[in-house]
Amino acid sequence: MKKTFLLAALFFSGVTLTAQSKDEQMFKEIYKSSLTNSKCYSWLDHLSNNIGSRLSGSENAQKAVLYTKAQLETLGLDKVYLQEVMVPKWVRGEKETAYIMDNKAKTSVPICALGGSIATSKNGLAAEVIEVQTIAELNTLGDKIKGKIVFFNRPMEQELIETFKSYGGCVDQRYAGAKEAAKFGAVGTIVRSMNLRLDDFPHTGNQSYGDLPESKYIPTAAISTNGAELLSKSLKSNSKLKFYFKQSCKQMEDVLSYNVIGELKGSEHPEKIIVVGGHLDSWDLADGSHDDGAGVVQSMEAVNIFKNLGYKPKNTIRVVLFMNEENGGKGGKKYEEVAQLNKENHIFALESDSGGFTPRGFNFESDDANFKRIEGWKNLFEPYLIHSFTKGHGGSDIDALTSKKIVKAGLKPDSQRYFDYHHAANDTFDAINKRELELGAATMASLLYLIDQNGIIE
Amino acid sequence: MKKTFLLAALFFSGVTLTAQSKDEQMFKEIYKSSLTNSKCYSWLDHLSNNIGSRLSGSENAQKAVLYTKAQLETLGLDKVYLQEVMVPKWVRGEKETAYIMDNKAKTSVPICALGGSIATSKNGLAAEVIEVQTIAELNTLGDKIKGKIVFFNRPMEQELIETFKSYGGCVDQRYAGAKEAAKFGAVGTIVRSMNLRLDDFPHTGNQSYGDLPESKYIPTAAISTNGAELLSKSLKSNSKLKFYFKQSCKQMEDVLSYNVIGELKGSEHPEKIIVVGGHLDSWDLADGSHDDGAGVVQSMEAVNIFKNLGYKPKNTIRVVLFMNEENGGKGGKKYEEVAQLNKENHIFALESDSGGFTPRGFNFESDDANFKRIEGWKNLFEPYLIHSFTKGHGGSDIDALTSKKIVKAGLKPDSQRYFDYHHAANDTFDAINKRELELGAATMASLLYLIDQNGIIE
Repeated sequence: MKKTFLLAALFFSGVTLTAQSKDEQMFKEIYKSSLTNSKCYSWLDHLSNNIGSRLSGSENAQKAVLYTKAQLETLGLDKVYLQEVMVPKWVRGEKETAYIMDNKAKTSVPICALGGSIATSKNGLAAEVIEVQTIAELNTLGDKIKGKIVFFNRPMEQELIETFKSYGGCVDQRYAGAKEAAKFGAVGTIVRSMNLRLDDFPHTGNQSYGDLPESKYIPTAAISTNGAELLSKSLKSNSKLKFYFKQSCKQMEDVLSYNVIGELKGSEHPEKIIVVGGHLDSWDLADGSHDDGAGVVQSMEAVNIFKNLGYKPKNTIRVVLFMNEENGGKGGKKYEEVAQLNKENHIFALESDSGGFTPRGFNFESDDANFKRIEGWKNLFEPYLIHSFTKGHGGSDIDALTSKKIVKAGLKPDSQRYFDYHHAANDTFDAINKRELELGAATMASLLYLIDQNGIIE
Repeated sequence: MKKTFLLAALFFSGVTLTAQSKDEQMFKEIYKSSLTNSKCYSWLDHLSNNIGSRLSGSENAQKAVLYTKAQLETLGLDKVYLQEVMVPKWVRGEKETAYIMDNKAKTSVPICALGGSIATSKNGLAAEVIEVQTIAELNTLGDKIKGKIVFFNRPMEQELIETFKSYGGCVDQRYAGAKEAAKFGAVGTIVRSMNLRLDDFPHTGNQSYGDLPESKYIPTAAISTNGAELLSKSLKSNSKLKFYFKQSCKQMEDVLSYNVIGELKGSEHPEKIIVVGGHLDSWDLADGSHDDGAGVVQSMEAVNIFKNLGYKPKNTIRVVLFMNEENGGKGGKKYEEVAQLNKENHIFALESDSGGFTPRGFNFESDDANFKRIEGWKNLFEPYLIHSFTKGHGGSDIDALTSKKIVKAGLKPDSQRYFDYHHAANDTFDAINKRELELGAATMASLLYLIDQNGIIE
């Protein structure tokens, strides 16, 4: 009602609106729609609390596919469909156990197997521990590593302002630590959780044995930051202590899963495609409300906002809920493969996969000309406290996407709390603030609107 | 160690540093000190978890005075002292009870007495309810109000981006609702909590009977947002239902309390004073970690950072922990009174009283010349994701402060979550993120540094 009234008022006002004031008005409507009339918070409530964790290949991941498809179908889009993709299936099995065995004392510490890790033997694994800060340090230790558990304990750097930079500076220990330690004959690795806080949550995440032969695989797990501090301290007083851990995780056969796709067809350039998305899968320890339930429902909300406002895009806007970002990225790759087959032309892709916190800006993968033009739109965003337009990584689901000319972007929410929850058992719905989530969706819709109106410089 | 090395390196580098790079370096040191070597989080842990709620005149408020004074004394300041101030003492008494009595059904709803309210009679108060959205609406109802409980139910506006604006647009119901309703013969008032979420926490806060004679005072309480929704819905189906509530709160005699003050004496202009502060008192329902434990420990940390870095201010920097911001503002007024007596010259005052969330910028109470100069410093702050310099209210504790020429500022943290906790039982230490708190302290110290270096345009 209000929108109709507004458009009528503008029509009859007898003045020609400048482009600026038209955009300002659209931003206002977008944010208002999101803050007063959005569905994203209740969608996330369902995904998190009724479905739960959504590791690729799990029953819950399939439930999430069906639920989000059904919800997209209620929005009156032009097309909603599933895209088949084979995904890896890794299962954790029984809850892991671990102890520091210091002389007679046996102290339990919280660990979790890293995604893709093999199990220990049924009785677990006990060995002496060698603590290192970096993979480079392994090379200097050589034979000393043989038969040991390597303990990677380099903390995330506190003094970096953007926490994703601290993560980037640490995550090699988790991703490649086991592969590198195995080369020197280590029997297992334990990695300090990628967490800026001291707490008792171990943080899982993907790891890769790379091109090691299977016979060389060793079990690897993350330890909570408090556990890492304790282990390090204990090693200082007794370098001969043993660490015991037991895990029963397993890599299964790949299974069929799906990307979920919804489309608003472009009125002027239906052949030009704008993608907005997040990933449907999550790790298995929690419901993944921030990683990446938030990005999923924000992407859905972006098109919901356009429908609510009666906005008809010039280009085709496609919401894509990718499967398997966490441990394989198969959904993103499949999407690109199909796009190539269909000779599709993508001009823009926007991803939300950095949590549902207050939005602060975007990272852009863009040539200078487009970036400069986008920077010229900053004044439209500033009333909504969006200030940070930087060049940087768009997101891993849209990484694979190629096109004649494409600009990519990633939503940048406030990052201070993200690694409190990332891949850990506390990444749950109660850590989501409704307004922060909605502001993110509105910020995404606003950028999509500007790209849709102005296209990109090709 | 690192600092000494750095200064030596600069000294021997043979290049003259520009003012800009000297400031950039200082900002870097300040943020690093706060993120790697601060005391503010552990101070807040003690204030919140070992002491707890600190309503003016309470035993805990006195403990907080002694604790923060003792902590300031460990920092090697030039002077730490207490400033006497008489403060009101209001006590809640027994936990309140309230019911919606709809025919035979009796539904319990969460309420809390508003600060300064009188009690109901011992058996409580039951009356029919009249729902209004605004104080203005009362005037149109006149006699219909007599003998009723007035239910103020105007929600905070969701579509405003800055939540303090929504608060400002609503808080008259809480502050003046009882006084206005009493004029029309209401027997009590119930006010929707100042909260943007739907939940079960009633939010207290100050209210005033203004110049009503004491015989006309009526009891007033806040109801949780879920409770308000239920009451409103129930009234729609039965306008004759009754609301019952019982509270036993009481205004006592004023008691002696203190502002806590610590000082770094200026090396060039000791007579020019820069104030940084927050308020020591909190409401009684929780430990007040955000309101305003955060502001207290951030202000203390700002001077701690200067001591850690060996920074010797040109002007006198004074940390002031004000008493009684919540229900009287006596500490702020006393501070100004003493400053006038001593003919002190304050050039700048900075307050943190908007929660311990990620800092986004500052509000400035300033003339144009000083504001323009301060805006010129924005580029120094942007690497720390501080973007928002606006004209606006500095803070209520520094409101009273006058001087020949003074600039005032208030730290502006991200405001989206603030009213989830404000004056409610969930404003507790677990809602604080260590890094966010520390970033706020560093942002405050950075501004204090620039003001100290450059003075103000007098």
